[in-house]
Amino acid sequence: FCVAVDDANGVFVNGKFCKDPKYVKAEDFFTSGLNIAGNTINRVGSNVTNANVDKIPGLNTLGVSLVRIDFAPGGQNPPHTHPRATEILVVVEGTLLVGFVTSNQDNNRLFSKVLYPGDVFVFPIGMIHFQVNVGRTNAVAFAGLGSQNPGTITIADAVFGSKPLITPEILAKAFQLDVNVVRYLEARFSSNYDRHY
Amino acid sequence: FCVAVDDANGVFVNGKFCKDPKYVKAEDFFTSGLNIAGNTINRVGSNVTNANVDKIPGLNTLGVSLVRIDFAPGGQNPPHTHPRATEILVVVEGTLLVGFVTSNQDNNRLFSKVLYPGDVFVFPIGMIHFQVNVGRTNAVAFAGLGSQNPGTITIADAVFGSKPLITPEILAKAFQLDVNVVRYLEARFSSNYDRHY
Amino acid sequence: FCVAVDDANGVFVNGKFCKDPKYVKAEDFFTSGLNIAGNTINRVGSNVTNANVDKIPGLNTLGVSLVRIDFAPGGQNPPHTHPRATEILVVVEGTLLVGFVTSNQDNNRLFSKVLYPGDVFVFPIGMIHFQVNVGRTNAVAFAGLGSQNPGTITIADAVFGSKPLITPEILAKAFQLDVNVVRYLEARFSSNYDRHY
Amino acid sequence: FCVAVDDANGVFVNGKFCKDPKYVKAEDFFTSGLNIAGNTINRVGSNVTNANVDKIPGLNTLGVSLVRIDFAPGGQNPPHTHPRATEILVVVEGTLLVGFVTSNQDNNRLFSKVLYPGDVFVFPIGMIHFQVNVGRTNAVAFAGLGSQNPGTITIADAVFGSKPLITPEILAKAFQLDVNVVRYLEARFSSNYDRHY
Amino acid sequence: FCVAVDDANGVFVNGKFCKDPKYVKAEDFFTSGLNIAGNTINRVGSNVTNANVDKIPGLNTLGVSLVRIDFAPGGQNPPHTHPRATEILVVVEGTLLVGFVTSNQDNNRLFSKVLYPGDVFVFPIGMIHFQVNVGRTNAVAFAGLGSQNPGTITIADAVFGSKPLITPEILAKAFQLDVNVVRYLEARFSSNYDRHY
Amino acid sequence: FCVAVDDANGVFVNGKFCKDPKYVKAEDFFTSGLNIAGNTINRVGSNVTNANVDKIPGLNTLGVSLVRIDFAPGGQNPPHTHPRATEILVVVEGTLLVGFVTSNQDNNRLFSKVLYPGDVFVFPIGMIHFQVNVGRTNAVAFAGLGSQNPGTITIADAVFGSKPLITPEILAKAFQLDVNVVRYLEARFSSNYDRHY
Repeated sequence: FCVAVDDANGVFVNGKFCKDPKYVKAEDFFTSGLNIAGNTINRVGSNVTNANVDKIPGLNTLGVSLVRIDFAPGGQNPPHTHPRATEILVVVEGTLLVGFVTSNQDNNRLFSKVLYPGDVFVFPIGMIHFQVNVGRTNAVAFAGLGSQNPGTITIADAVFGSKPLITPEILAKAFQLDVNVVRYLEARFSSNYDRHY
Repeated sequence: FCVAVDDANGVFVNGKFCKDPKYVKAEDFFTSGLNIAGNTINRVGSNVTNANVDKIPGLNTLGVSLVRIDFAPGGQNPPHTHPRATEILVVVEGTLLVGFVTSNQDNNRLFSKVLYPGDVFVFPIGMIHFQVNVGRTNAVAFAGLGSQNPGTITIADAVFGSKPLITPEILAKAFQLDVNVVRYLEARFSSNYDRHY
Repeated sequence: FCVAVDDANGVFVNGKFCKDPKYVKAEDFFTSGLNIAGNTINRVGSNVTNANVDKIPGLNTLGVSLVRIDFAPGGQNPPHTHPRATEILVVVEGTLLVGFVTSNQDNNRLFSKVLYPGDVFVFPIGMIHFQVNVGRTNAVAFAGLGSQNPGTITIADAVFGSKPLITPEILAKAFQLDVNVVRYLEARFSSNYDRHY
Repeated sequence: FCVAVDDANGVFVNGKFCKDPKYVKAEDFFTSGLNIAGNTINRVGSNVTNANVDKIPGLNTLGVSLVRIDFAPGGQNPPHTHPRATEILVVVEGTLLVGFVTSNQDNNRLFSKVLYPGDVFVFPIGMIHFQVNVGRTNAVAFAGLGSQNPGTITIADAVFGSKPLITPEILAKAFQLDVNVVRYLEARFSSNYDRHY
Repeated sequence: FCVAVDDANGVFVNGKFCKDPKYVKAEDFFTSGLNIAGNTINRVGSNVTNANVDKIPGLNTLGVSLVRIDFAPGGQNPPHTHPRATEILVVVEGTLLVGFVTSNQDNNRLFSKVLYPGDVFVFPIGMIHFQVNVGRTNAVAFAGLGSQNPGTITIADAVFGSKPLITPEILAKAFQLDVNVVRYLEARFSSNYDRHY
Repeated sequence: FCVAVDDANGVFVNGKFCKDPKYVKAEDFFTSGLNIAGNTINRVGSNVTNANVDKIPGLNTLGVSLVRIDFAPGGQNPPHTHPRATEILVVVEGTLLVGFVTSNQDNNRLFSKVLYPGDVFVFPIGMIHFQVNVGRTNAVAFAGLGSQNPGTITIADAVFGSKPLITPEILAKAFQLDVNVVRYLEARFSSNYDRHY
């Protein structure tokens, strides 16, 4: 293994340096807090708590990480991708409608299912996917991801809230929207007031 | 190498079987037609011509492919991702505005640039990216991709045109759109009348 | 992705064939039952419930899986390795003493820690590790593993309970045990009456 | 991604360090000049212009690169290998005879073909291959390579022009040449006056 | 390639930094001494001499290494695993009984065979395996391993001799041994007086 | 692991299919004969005996193999590459001059050394390398390779002895040889009468 260190002088290797093995300790393989529900009072009604290499330096190069996802009733983890990892999710509480959409070559098929506690679902690497709490209570899920640093690209945030913004006329054509609707969306998503993670 | 074969009985391995080496021939490493401009008379004014493992069976397992992209004036290759490949593009004709957006962890930054003939730009694996013809003439680009089967997920098609459709209320919340706007978009994108590839 | 199929005629590729994409359905990415506590009435007082490629054919080639582990008070998931995966574990209930031992080159150091609900710990690929319920109540953990087919080698079962058995004299020398103690152990472990998974 | 930096103090990681993400900019994913024909006035009548990680620091770790190859009439890109990449080539101008030779295990078969504009051919990783302009005009090709740093080993330069030279008697036996012919070749190839890249 | 350097200031990347290519020399790809029989006067009667990245800095990132193993009559290379490499062994002198045990999923089957000079056997990555000199003379073997830094975990040393020790009660339950036997074993294996490598 | 099977109906996956695990046996991980000196009465005075996946089906997918190389006095293993593996060689008998040449980007430097019994040398993946017996007695070496199917491309055989032959005029220009010398070489190397492996 190769325990990551944060390095002050601005040089990074695959995101992180490795610590001298002599100084590695059990805490380098540890983080805590996944028992605490994340704050779901935000635009989408969900919250993701990460246990990845930023939290656990000992995960560096090891190719796996965990998240806890909390959902308020009606909340959703909106359409997003992980550019470097497949995700496998288990519901521990509540009811989730989940789905992913395949690539153009597979005709953008939607694979979707309602999940109950103990149900497990897989979202293959790079596919756009989402989870929605369709029950009346909070929902909680854990998920394993096949990278220590999977990354997340929330589609709406990346498309309509990038910094700087994408020219509205480009998005208007791509999404077949009136340019004023795009401008409205960009104003909302770039304000960043309530990103859930 | 491992030349792919189409197999009639519905069993696939990493997408393709391998041909008996004895019967492999030069044509298995060949395709043609990248000199011909693709038809850009469609919704987005662009067209992608692939030279991937579906066209060149000898590419199987070899981890690289090519595309030619044609753009009408004002046309765009709309925001999309390749779930399994980084892309490196060279402009051979015309003027393109290109960009990609990084992940949430990097604050969804947009890296963007106007490219002229001979200019080269890189779109890292899994990132949402686009190219727009901002010149007055047709534009042509070639791109190398780091997979024999990179896949393409056009965001608008996958989100608003999946089969079956994603429930409009879910997308309305994710994209902060009126549910009727979502219904309109889903009607447009699911009709599929003018997908560019 | 490449959904696995069980194939009747005894030919396997990386364990599994792939299904024709046309016939893939949402259920191929699904399994259930991780809400149910495994039966911990066995020799070690623990039970592992898998959600790997044997349960979820759609996981094939995707490099990640999940498990639920249940522990009776005093129960343990005895020293074992995963030959093809790093493990990241989160405690959801109870108190676990966990640890892993590094290789000879690192002087067989033990990295160990007591975990409470919400705590997360990492066991790097191939390292011998264990978890012990040191609380008074049942304990439950979920773990992500960096392979769809990580494999498990329980040290005591593999060393003293292989089929056929390893010659007792060899193990007596290796473990500095009286050969009669080895014979006793081999009798116990080869009976296989209460393997926990 | 991991943008490379040139580091003055002689320490390298996989060839390059990574830049602090905060200072990454669009230019890190950019290079130019592939519209300009390379100078083909040299021993072999061809020229390769690279767009690899040495030119585009943002390519670091991303596993793909591009080249432009120019050929004078009768010019050739002489037999060479890429030790770390498969190549996929598209002819944009002129007529090329291309080929690669398989390994001893496959009986050193030559797969060869004459290519015209728009034709695409694949040279699998590590195989000796060549391209010859068999038309009357200049020829131009672009090629994608499956590594950000594929490397090139021109057979004649490496065998007869290494620094220091390989003992002539060794090469005389290997190539069944008179030792004086080897000495003549080594004199020519080690002078290095007209290496094309 | 990427030649490793030992770095005084405690920062490591995949175990090693890379040397500036300009200063790389033939000696970086070289080590010696595999003609000398290792000292087999120890607890297990065997000795392993490594030729890995710690001895040959030029092996860094290249994914292969060698060992020489010497066995006194009756000596053994006791049950161990390599967490990051498959091993392929050739006997050059003497007679060896070798074997490996598969994972729980394969029912812990033992694959075993007596080997004579010139015989070759494979131990798949992560599997517990051993070699025993069952002849009357010394035995010598060479083995290739599929990593420049394969690591070795000798089961008895890691389980009963870790630093610090694993709580005896845990091992007593895992191995179905009286806790006093475990204490005796831990005293022996932690003394470390005669580790063979 | 995934034991290879030879399959009569001409369909291959990564070269080989996998055997049903139930029918795997110890012999699948075994081959013999590396104690026997190969016949060195041939053009180059050397002989390579392989222990790769063609001989040991259990090596399939495991990424390592072995060879024994015999050299008559003055014999050589002529300049060649392994397209898919780094090689690590140990001399067990005799004296070998070995070397490899780096890529054009590194200025085709030759790293060379005389090796005696017990000496170990590394040839990085894809680099042209050779071994010459510069002693008065036979020489023997073993080498580990980082692939179960590394492939070998003997430069002279592939360049001057391909099937069909490369047009002499192309090679004359590439190697700066008179076309009649090329014709002579092609006649010699294509006769194939004494290939050493």
